[in-house]
Amino acid sequence: MGYFKQRYEELDKAIREKRPMIHHITNYVVMNVTANVTLAMGASPVMAHANEEVEEMVSFASAHILNPGTLSPHWITAMLKSGRKAKELGIPVILDPVGAGATRLRTDTCRQILEEVRPDVIRGNQAEVMVLAGEKAKIQGVDSLEKGETPIEALRTMARQTGSVICVTGPVDYITDGERTFAVENGHPMMGFVTGTGCSSTTAVAVYCAGGGANAETCALGLGVFGVCGEMAAEECRGPGSFQVAILDALYNAPERNLGARLRIREV
Amino acid sequence: MGYFKQRYEELDKAIREKRPMIHHITNYVVMNVTANVTLAMGASPVMAHANEEVEEMVSFASAHILNPGTLSPHWITAMLKSGRKAKELGIPVILDPVGAGATRLRTDTCRQILEEVRPDVIRGNQAEVMVLAGEKAKIQGVDSLEKGETPIEALRTMARQTGSVICVTGPVDYITDGERTFAVENGHPMMGFVTGTGCSSTTAVAVYCAGGGANAETCALGLGVFGVCGEMAAEECRGPGSFQVAILDALYNAPERNLGARLRIREV
Amino acid sequence: MGYFKQRYEELDKAIREKRPMIHHITNYVVMNVTANVTLAMGASPVMAHANEEVEEMVSFASAHILNPGTLSPHWITAMLKSGRKAKELGIPVILDPVGAGATRLRTDTCRQILEEVRPDVIRGNQAEVMVLAGEKAKIQGVDSLEKGETPIEALRTMARQTGSVICVTGPVDYITDGERTFAVENGHPMMGFVTGTGCSSTTAVAVYCAGGGANAETCALGLGVFGVCGEMAAEECRGPGSFQVAILDALYNAPERNLGARLRIREV
Repeated sequence: MGYFKQRYEELDKAIREKRPMIHHITNYVVMNVTANVTLAMGASPVMAHANEEVEEMVSFASAHILNPGTLSPHWITAMLKSGRKAKELGIPVILDPVGAGATRLRTDTCRQILEEVRPDVIRGNQAEVMVLAGEKAKIQGVDSLEKGETPIEALRTMARQTGSVICVTGPVDYITDGERTFAVENGHPMMGFVTGTGCSSTTAVAVYCAGGGANAETCALGLGVFGVCGEMAAEECRGPGSFQVAILDALYNAPERNLGARLRIREV
Repeated sequence: MGYFKQRYEELDKAIREKRPMIHHITNYVVMNVTANVTLAMGASPVMAHANEEVEEMVSFASAHILNPGTLSPHWITAMLKSGRKAKELGIPVILDPVGAGATRLRTDTCRQILEEVRPDVIRGNQAEVMVLAGEKAKIQGVDSLEKGETPIEALRTMARQTGSVICVTGPVDYITDGERTFAVENGHPMMGFVTGTGCSSTTAVAVYCAGGGANAETCALGLGVFGVCGEMAAEECRGPGSFQVAILDALYNAPERNLGARLRIREV
Repeated sequence: MGYFKQRYEELDKAIREKRPMIHHITNYVVMNVTANVTLAMGASPVMAHANEEVEEMVSFASAHILNPGTLSPHWITAMLKSGRKAKELGIPVILDPVGAGATRLRTDTCRQILEEVRPDVIRGNQAEVMVLAGEKAKIQGVDSLEKGETPIEALRTMARQTGSVICVTGPVDYITDGERTFAVENGHPMMGFVTGTGCSSTTAVAVYCAGGGANAETCALGLGVFGVCGEMAAEECRGPGSFQVAILDALYNAPERNLGARLRIREV
C-alpha cells in the first residue's frame, strides 16, 4: 500500500503545480460538476463542443474526455473530430460510454468512437462497458455475470482487443490494461444519490492520466483518490446535497488530509 | 390529514423500492438540479433529447417530463415525438410550460404539446397555465384574477377541456382534475430565490405519478412533499446557497423525518 | 470610500425593489450558477437562446449578457440578433469574451459582436480583453505586460475606440470608460477554484447596470459587491464546494451584513 500512497503524493503534487488542461466534451447535466471537480483537483477544465473549434481547443489539452451523455448529431461529429486529433497529438483520450446499451444511438456512437478514435481509457459501469466488449469477451463474461461477479477475465480480453485501459466502477472498481489488473475498494454508496459522480470519476481518471500518462496504474489512482474523497464527504454529510459540497472540499483539501493513507488499491 | 400522511408513506416507500425512471426533456439551467431531486426522492433520472433516441429512451420510463425552458427547434420535435410515444405506451406525461406567455415560440410550443401530446398533467405558475387555458376558462378566470385570487373554477374547466390534471403552484398550490380539487399549503418564500424550484416541483409531481399513477391526489402529494422539504430547508439555511443543499438533504431524509405529519393538503 | 458605500446602498435597495430582468445568453457550464447569482442579488434571470425568440425575450430585459463560453453556430446568430435588438431598445449589453484568443471561432465571434453589437460593457480577464483591443491599444499595452502590470493606458484607449466600458478582472480589477478609471481591490483567490466566478462577476456587473445604467461606476460597484461576497464566503468556507454555497448566501444577505463598508474601490 505504501507504493500507491507515494505514487499518489507525487502525482497530486505534480498536477497541482502543472495545472493540466482537461478538455471535456460532456453532457449538459454534469458540465458544471465536472468542471468543479477538475478545479478542486488542481487541474484546469475547458468545455468546448463546436465542430469549428474542437480540434484547435484539444491541442492545448493534457487529457480529453468524450462523454455522450446528452447527445445531438453535431456533438457526435465533434467528438470524433477532436478525439482523432487528440490521438494524433498523443493526448490521452478517455471515453465515458454513458448510457451505452440504453439506446441504439448511444451504443452506436460509443462503438464508433471506439473504432475511429481508439481511446486510451474507457471508464463506465459494468453494463455500459460490457455492451462495448467484443464477442469473445462477452462469452467469457457470461459465467461471472451469472454468479453476480465482475467479469475480470472478459475485461482483460477487452483491454487487449481494444488497446484501451478498461475501468469498470462499482462497489469495487476494476482497472485493467490486459496485463496488469487493479482493484480499488474506495468509495461510498452515497455517490449513487448524486448525479454526475460517475462522470466525475472519469474526470479524476483524466486528471491522473494528464499527470502521469494513460495507464492502468494512473487510472486506478484517479479512481482511488475520488473514492477516498467520497468516503470523507459521506462521513461529514447529512444527505446528497451536503455530500456534493463536501466532496469538492475534500478533493481540494486532499494534500492536507493524508488522503494517500486511505487508498485501498491492490493488484489482482 | 391522516389520510394524506398514510398515502404519502405508502407511496414514498414504493418509490424508493421501485426506483422508477423519470425521463426529462428539460432546460439546460435546471438539468443538474432536477436530476438530483429525482435521485434524492429515490427515483432514477434520465436526460435525453436527441430526436434519434427519445422514443426508445422514453419506453423505459415510468413518467416523462416535457419542459421547454430553453428551446431550440430540434428540441421541440423531440418533445412531440417522445411525448406521443409515452402516451401511446401509457406512461404519464407532465408538461411544465416554462415561460408560456413570454414569447410566441414558447406559447406556441406549449399549445402544440397540449394538442398533439395531451399531457396527463400540466404544472406551472398561474400566468403560464392561464395562457394555455381555452376561451371559456379564461373568461371564467377574469373575475378571480381581478380580485387577486386563484381562478379555481377556470382551472376546473381547463382540466375538463384538456383532460389533464392542472397544477398551479404559488403561495398555495391548487390541483384539479375538473372533479376533485386540492389545495396544498406547504412551501416557503425562499424557494423563489433559487433557480429550478418550479421545475423541481414538476419533478416531484412526476415521481409521485410514477409511484401512484397520474391523478390529482398523487400530484397534490408530490407538491406537498416538495413543499415540506422546502420548509425544512428554509428552517436550516442561511440563504439560497445553503437552501439548495438543505432541500436535497431533506428530500433524501424524508422517511426518517416524519415528513407526512407536516403535509397541509385539503380538498376544496 | 463613503461615496461608494452610499451609492452601493442606494443601488442595492433599488435593484431588490425593482427586480430587473437580466437576459443571459451564456454557456451551459455556468447557466445554473449565474441564474442563482442573479436571484441572490435580487434581480430576475432569464436564459433563452433560440433565434426564434431572442429578440422578443430581450425586449423585456433591463440588461443583456452575451457569453460565448460554449458556442455553436446557431448561438452566434442568436447573440448577434438579440444584441442588436437590445442596443436598439437602449438595453445595456455586456459582453463576456470567454476564451477569446483560445480558438479562432471564439476570437472571431467576440470581434463580430464587438463590431455589430457595440456592447456597452466588456468584462473579461486581461488576456481575453487584450485579444480584442485594436492595434494602438495593443502597442500601448506591451510595456505594461512585459513588466507584469495591468496595461491601464491600453484599456483606456480601447474604451475610447470601442465606446464600451472595459472591465478587466484579476487580483485587482480595473474598470475604465476612457475618461474615468476605477480600481477594485475586493475578491479572494478561492474564486479561481470554482467554475463560473468570472461569468458570475459579469452577472453582477449586468445587475448593477440594470439598476444604475451602464457606466464605469456601476460596473465597479458590481465587481466590488461580488468581490466582497467572495471574501465573506472565503472566510466561512472549507473549500470550493462550501465556497459556492457561501457566496450565494452572502449575496442574498448583503443588505444585512454591511457589505458597503468593505468595498475597496478607488479612482485611479
